[in-house]
Amino acid sequence: MPNQAQPVLIAGEWRPADTVGEFHPTNPQTKQPTGEIYPVSSIKDVEAAVVTASEASEQLLNVSPETKAQFLEQYADRIEARREDLVEMAHNETSYPKETRLNGIELPRTTNQLRQAAQAARDQSWALLTIDTETDIRSMYAALEGGVAIFGPNNFPFAFNSISGGDFAAAIAAGNPVIGKANSSHPGTTRIFAEEAFEASRETGMPDGTVQLIYRTDHEVGKRFVSHPLIGATGYTGSRRAGLVLKEAADKVGKPIYLELSSINPVAILPGALRERAEEIADEFLTSCLLGTGQFCTNPGIILLIKDEATDSFLDMAKEKFANAPVGTLLSEGVLNNLAGGVEALTGVGAELLVGGESGGGIGFSYQNTLLQVSGSQFLENPQALQQEAFGNESLAVVADDVEQAKEITSSFEGNLTGCIYTAQDGSDDALYDGLAPILRRKVGRLLNDKMPTGVAVVPAMNHGGPYPSTGHPGFTSVGIPASLLRFAMLQCFDNIREHRLPSELRDKNPTGTLWRQIDGEWTQGDVK
Amino acid sequence: MPNQAQPVLIAGEWRPADTVGEFHPTNPQTKQPTGEIYPVSSIKDVEAAVVTASEASEQLLNVSPETKAQFLEQYADRIEARREDLVEMAHNETSYPKETRLNGIELPRTTNQLRQAAQAARDQSWALLTIDTETDIRSMYAALEGGVAIFGPNNFPFAFNSISGGDFAAAIAAGNPVIGKANSSHPGTTRIFAEEAFEASRETGMPDGTVQLIYRTDHEVGKRFVSHPLIGATGYTGSRRAGLVLKEAADKVGKPIYLELSSINPVAILPGALRERAEEIADEFLTSCLLGTGQFCTNPGIILLIKDEATDSFLDMAKEKFANAPVGTLLSEGVLNNLAGGVEALTGVGAELLVGGESGGGIGFSYQNTLLQVSGSQFLENPQALQQEAFGNESLAVVADDVEQAKEITSSFEGNLTGCIYTAQDGSDDALYDGLAPILRRKVGRLLNDKMPTGVAVVPAMNHGGPYPSTGHPGFTSVGIPASLLRFAMLQCFDNIREHRLPSELRDKNPTGTLWRQIDGEWTQGDVK
Repeated sequence: MPNQAQPVLIAGEWRPADTVGEFHPTNPQTKQPTGEIYPVSSIKDVEAAVVTASEASEQLLNVSPETKAQFLEQYADRIEARREDLVEMAHNETSYPKETRLNGIELPRTTNQLRQAAQAARDQSWALLTIDTETDIRSMYAALEGGVAIFGPNNFPFAFNSISGGDFAAAIAAGNPVIGKANSSHPGTTRIFAEEAFEASRETGMPDGTVQLIYRTDHEVGKRFVSHPLIGATGYTGSRRAGLVLKEAADKVGKPIYLELSSINPVAILPGALRERAEEIADEFLTSCLLGTGQFCTNPGIILLIKDEATDSFLDMAKEKFANAPVGTLLSEGVLNNLAGGVEALTGVGAELLVGGESGGGIGFSYQNTLLQVSGSQFLENPQALQQEAFGNESLAVVADDVEQAKEITSSFEGNLTGCIYTAQDGSDDALYDGLAPILRRKVGRLLNDKMPTGVAVVPAMNHGGPYPSTGHPGFTSVGIPASLLRFAMLQCFDNIREHRLPSELRDKNPTGTLWRQIDGEWTQGDVK
Repeated sequence: MPNQAQPVLIAGEWRPADTVGEFHPTNPQTKQPTGEIYPVSSIKDVEAAVVTASEASEQLLNVSPETKAQFLEQYADRIEARREDLVEMAHNETSYPKETRLNGIELPRTTNQLRQAAQAARDQSWALLTIDTETDIRSMYAALEGGVAIFGPNNFPFAFNSISGGDFAAAIAAGNPVIGKANSSHPGTTRIFAEEAFEASRETGMPDGTVQLIYRTDHEVGKRFVSHPLIGATGYTGSRRAGLVLKEAADKVGKPIYLELSSINPVAILPGALRERAEEIADEFLTSCLLGTGQFCTNPGIILLIKDEATDSFLDMAKEKFANAPVGTLLSEGVLNNLAGGVEALTGVGAELLVGGESGGGIGFSYQNTLLQVSGSQFLENPQALQQEAFGNESLAVVADDVEQAKEITSSFEGNLTGCIYTAQDGSDDALYDGLAPILRRKVGRLLNDKMPTGVAVVPAMNHGGPYPSTGHPGFTSVGIPASLLRFAMLQCFDNIREHRLPSELRDKNPTGTLWRQIDGEWTQGDVK
């Protein structure tokens, strides 16, 4: 039987996959197949891609930072030129609104990220250039040996796509070739990105193996992929279950793997804030929780309240808002089933359903906007089960008896990407804040005040990371340039190296006059004196 | 039977260990017991120490950087005051020369390291303070949640000691309490350090659980130690075998573990350099290889040569120097047996013994200075077996047929801490260097020219790290302040946090006027404008 599946991009050509199966993406609104067929690749495809990436990784040593920057910029331009196809395809594959999400927000975020990465490649701001003159020892971060495997998530078809998202931008800007593993929720979108990335790489003279794409593998092949002797590192965003399978394989052979696994992003709303502006906060909560049908890594999955009369009226208000808000479409039947199962698991351990709790209510794959409630004591009896992520338009209100119990609950939180505390403007929550914040602070990558967590600005100080199990390591971020590049880099030290053999960034003369370097402990754009 | 073993330091007191056994350290020169008895701790001791450290980790949130700095400095002063006891004990336990090694070199290195760490705690140079004014997002590195477990190696009783070495200094300066696991080669030295550290912590008002000490555990307890839910991270320097056991346990539960495992530190000596200054290089090689009886992490375990007449005469010269050099004492019977076994393994896969190869020749536990040789083709037939570390006064010369084979050999190297290339001053090796250096560069953490790797300066640009399996991650260093602190830290982001609730380092006003912060992409010591 001829291979009807879409070709993969390996070693500089679109070629038939070596398949062990195929899959048919589904339009989540119509629940019908999109009509395209995609391959499940065998280990042969993975092997070929990894070997090619390893060669490209060597070739990239001779490509200037400026060329890498030009590639990223050219690619961003091409994405904008191909905007209509991308939006159309992503809409069919994910059901995300064309204007208010895909074209209006996610596409500019994506091209902006690529352009910021280009700038980081050019100004080497990520490399932490360090020079000690007395000992003549110099160091910097530089690309890894071998390509970077990127497993993108289902929920951001543009901004976290394996072939256009934050991990891609970071890995390329740090000087590494990328092998993208598409998410099965949007293979067509990923294919269009890869077409444009590949063309941009040719136009700017990047090695042919800089960008490669496969669509899916089984678990065994996935494990061999991330643990391949020639792979440099892996970036993975997705389910905790699949991520931990890959982590185990990579850890065993000492290959770096950066994981974003799951997060319930607790939001504590303190009594004074509720007294002061309950409705405003309920609106912010509703918007944040239902944004993208709740399919955000930073979706507020738990709100923590302290029992008093304001709490009940707040929950009544939230309940009504959840019931009246339109129900969005979920990304796939899998997401729907996980969400339904997650809600069932929560009620199974004592959470009370305030509103929602049934499939349907929207177009295609959908599930009612769902709010659950549990008492603080119940939560503390079963903290692990009650903080399992139910990915989607759902949240669990935890109502603590008092301040002490709220602290205990906070102490029981696993590692999360974010944690928020809403407090009164008049200072009436300040003492409570001071007791709670130090506990929450260390459980999360990003702490917020009076702001829901779903906005993730792409700025240097952003941390989209957090303690395990939200990610695999508390010291790295996947959003925020230049810091996100450090994941795909090694520390290189030069000891007594003759000056003409040093990378130009580490020679006495600042090659551009604008690179920031730490010379003898002082940050400067000057030369070594 | 009363517990005669030395007490452990847990929860602010020296108390009898909960033991599952005991051990008797040996003087390596006399091969006699030192007379002291040390406990092998049960899980109960570990549990108590980890819980205490977790509490101390919380208490340390309220301790200023200045106090942490004062503690480290006070401790350095106390080490100097206790110098005689330390040198005497370490000499008995390790046989290292009192003046030329312990008192003259390693002690000042240790106190210097502690004082540099104090300075880093004070100036927050390690925290990468980052502020984005437009979005009001700010971030920094800060201490982990939970204590840091430190497993020190046998070979540096002062400078890498669990309770005084680089990992200790880094973990404390980053704001973490430490639980030291002494190395069995020098428990008495470690005990004296812990006595002084504990006193210094009391004098400076640090929490009682800041410094704790146990001496030994079995493997099962060690695994539970590094994977304990309340532990923050682990620093380990030692054998690859034991390290990988701990790594697997820590990885499984997502606990960071930083490992320094083994390294053969290849040194390529190019033909022009040999023609120009063979004897000088042979002397440098001899000194480096036999330093500390070869018991350095950066000991040159492989020299790579390219066959010609200069090679043979160089090896003859080296052979003679190895034969005539005094034979040092090894740290323990275990080290001796490993070295003997390592040499046997190398000859078993075809290495030819040029000189040495027998136990004895020095005082106490000793093994002849040993040089082996293997052809490039033989090496390439069995690259893994021929780059197993034989820790001690031993090195393997690999003689390549030609330049191409030298490149192939370099490509086959595993990850190492260091790699060196010696080249002629007259430029005659330059083309060869340009072919070899890019390959070697990515196999090692530190690349050197015309210099042996055994000196590891404690300066900001130092990288004492490298790709797996030399360490567990290519992005971190265990020497070099402030960079070494980043291992024991999490990235903390503050989003829309009211200014008075921010850490003082991240408020608009630079609290000291001297902190380096990156504000909107520019490094500055100024305020937010």
